[in-house]
Amino acid sequence: QGEQKPFQRVIDVSCGDPHRAGMPPLSFARQVLAVCLYPELLKESSFPVDVRQRAEKLLGACNGGSVGSYSASSCGIPQIQKSVAEFITRRDGGVASDPEDIIFSSGSQKTLKLVLHLLSSGQGPTQTGLLTPLPCPHTLPMLLDEVGVKLVPYQLLEERGWAIDLEELHRALKAARRHCEPRAIYISNPGNPTGHVQDLKTIEEVIRFAASERLVLLVEEVYQDSVFGQDKKFLSYKKVLFEMGASFSESVEMVSFHSISAGTMGECGLRGGYMEVINMDLLVKNFLTSMQGPSSPPVLPQLALEIMVNPPSPGDASYEVFTQEILQKVETLAQNAQRACEFLNAVPGMSCQPAMGGVFLYPRLHLPAEIIQEAQRSGLRADVLYCKKLLEEEGVCLGPGSENGHDDENYHIRLCISAPTAVLEDVLKRLRSFHLWIQDRHH
Amino acid sequence: QGEQKPFQRVIDVSCGDPHRAGMPPLSFARQVLAVCLYPELLKESSFPVDVRQRAEKLLGACNGGSVGSYSASSCGIPQIQKSVAEFITRRDGGVASDPEDIIFSSGSQKTLKLVLHLLSSGQGPTQTGLLTPLPCPHTLPMLLDEVGVKLVPYQLLEERGWAIDLEELHRALKAARRHCEPRAIYISNPGNPTGHVQDLKTIEEVIRFAASERLVLLVEEVYQDSVFGQDKKFLSYKKVLFEMGASFSESVEMVSFHSISAGTMGECGLRGGYMEVINMDLLVKNFLTSMQGPSSPPVLPQLALEIMVNPPSPGDASYEVFTQEILQKVETLAQNAQRACEFLNAVPGMSCQPAMGGVFLYPRLHLPAEIIQEAQRSGLRADVLYCKKLLEEEGVCLGPGSENGHDDENYHIRLCISAPTAVLEDVLKRLRSFHLWIQDRHH
Repeated sequence: QGEQKPFQRVIDVSCGDPHRAGMPPLSFARQVLAVCLYPELLKESSFPVDVRQRAEKLLGACNGGSVGSYSASSCGIPQIQKSVAEFITRRDGGVASDPEDIIFSSGSQKTLKLVLHLLSSGQGPTQTGLLTPLPCPHTLPMLLDEVGVKLVPYQLLEERGWAIDLEELHRALKAARRHCEPRAIYISNPGNPTGHVQDLKTIEEVIRFAASERLVLLVEEVYQDSVFGQDKKFLSYKKVLFEMGASFSESVEMVSFHSISAGTMGECGLRGGYMEVINMDLLVKNFLTSMQGPSSPPVLPQLALEIMVNPPSPGDASYEVFTQEILQKVETLAQNAQRACEFLNAVPGMSCQPAMGGVFLYPRLHLPAEIIQEAQRSGLRADVLYCKKLLEEEGVCLGPGSENGHDDENYHIRLCISAPTAVLEDVLKRLRSFHLWIQDRHH
Repeated sequence: QGEQKPFQRVIDVSCGDPHRAGMPPLSFARQVLAVCLYPELLKESSFPVDVRQRAEKLLGACNGGSVGSYSASSCGIPQIQKSVAEFITRRDGGVASDPEDIIFSSGSQKTLKLVLHLLSSGQGPTQTGLLTPLPCPHTLPMLLDEVGVKLVPYQLLEERGWAIDLEELHRALKAARRHCEPRAIYISNPGNPTGHVQDLKTIEEVIRFAASERLVLLVEEVYQDSVFGQDKKFLSYKKVLFEMGASFSESVEMVSFHSISAGTMGECGLRGGYMEVINMDLLVKNFLTSMQGPSSPPVLPQLALEIMVNPPSPGDASYEVFTQEILQKVETLAQNAQRACEFLNAVPGMSCQPAMGGVFLYPRLHLPAEIIQEAQRSGLRADVLYCKKLLEEEGVCLGPGSENGHDDENYHIRLCISAPTAVLEDVLKRLRSFHLWIQDRHH
């Protein structure tokens, strides 16, 4: 409203939107998509040969050789379902994936909503409940509200870097069974917003828990390519499930979500992803496919997905540039995570667990009693008031932990670290300056 | 299944999917979108200067200057809402359009479904009914089934080129009120699949009818740029409504649907469009916006929409090429419509009304009694059996009139004429040969 502010521009790092923060897209992906849109570019010699070859291959999979035609079926382009299944099989060291289990989506939130819609039933003590980690992805609580599924919280262990605790799962389930019917458990790995990466033992425990309690596993694995913690690597729930033997792999119902918005692609604006649906009834799969809408899914996000699951190979003209860009992105994430964690832990009244993957940090705030009381007077939670004031005073938009489901006396903020180093530094300095100011004011 | 067929390839002209049939995309649109995806192309001198300028402008409207970021709001990119409103205002000779009335969609079918969902309520005699033209767009009957809205048919007058008849509207409404609650009337203009273009008098009559019967007007106007009948031009319902004075323009509830899939753009694969929502409650508008999903709409279809509503102007570098391409497309449509109509009317046992706009012809079949009986024995309608055999014998896929809501003793087929002339000729020849064969067989 024209008021003078001490900052030049607002920086919004509350969501995982890397391009908005200034991270560049992957050149190979954008080159191929540009050629698919305007095939005259095939004649331009400036593009690497594998860009042209890929574009020709993808256009060959489109009806009439054009991205302007409807997809072949309401499931999408069959060749791309196949590419995704092959990617999953490679990723999981040979554990087979069936193209018919792959359902395209315009973003993992949208498919998650469909799945929850399907699970949702009852009310009061018969209402469907979803075991939900706290903290959880910030879009999840609202989604559960919309579809009428009860959020059944299980606490992640902050002091152990936000790991899952089996005893806590049992406690949460037992407590919940008194007032709803828990039907599924939600997992985010690598963790949004915690940055935690689960190890084999944890995943096995969770699968055994889901199997014995007959819970559907909803596994969000969108940051699978963004693991940077030392000696950490991504293990898919699917791989672990199938290595636990037939008694598990043939019975546990699981949906795994992946997306072109997250990780090194970061193509949020294109809106695309897939889910792999395992051990689910055929009727359920047909419902999930048909509920996407009366018409076929958009073509370009499917092509972007094909590029994500099928990057250039050694020997391809784009291989080196592509590999460099990926390395640089993951390296930037790793450096940003470490730098921000150390920086925030050095600010009085803040503490932060190190991240091993994903694009968020989730530091804890130790707030003066005065601001908590001020928040209570305004009918706000203190983390929400904190973020509001931070935006007003310093032009930095972070996410309050309330959005991630936290509603107790612990206050946290959410911070996307998938940003150019200079942007992150700017955010950190403004955040520290604000945090010191707010503590000073109250002492 | 490996069986030898007398044709080389299947031609599918049952849907309005021009790129699939081989119609080229608009160069300006594809060039701008390619540059937006891969801005390095800004440095390529081979693109016209206005392509680069437009791309820079559109990227400037994207968060972080990238199509890879989420849209600014769940309504989409505000500048593009504004562009659409300005387009409507120009189109309607100055009748104002409010950017806040513009809601983006991933295709007009999807938004129509949301609107119908909102209107849907009751069952038995209280079930919501929709006055629906027969024939109607082939996707509509299934959509109504899905959302639980009753199809209340009103017959278009074939012998008057599929015009609307006011008396028939009154008859249909009166008959329907005995077994449901008609709440809205669906209009397709230019008509899908009839090719009829409504005149001022008809539109005024329909608006007066909707006003006095308190029906919501759902107006599908996706072929507004594809009118080619002599002395015919497209008049929007919005324009006519507002020229009828405040007693109408301030009260009649109306939703107009437009799409980048239809007309000269023909970008079915991108999945984008908008609806303009007039005289509707603010709550309704908010619902329609929020129901699009938990996240923001895809960026590229919005950019394509901006290009559609804001084509190159005289003096712009791309103006001549663009204008030529548009002229050529409309000219091809006009020639195809005339050629196919004359051709079909010369086939014994077929008759066809001339089209004045849109991309379909809807010829009538006069079938031998034997094929009707054969269909009855197989539990099919004769038009469905006809299309099935046509596909098997000649490799041509047309749409049976049953899909367009026709279920009486009149049989029709639907035929998309937005195709290269050679493809159309091939379709016509195969159709005639099949039609003569099937009549011969039964005499």
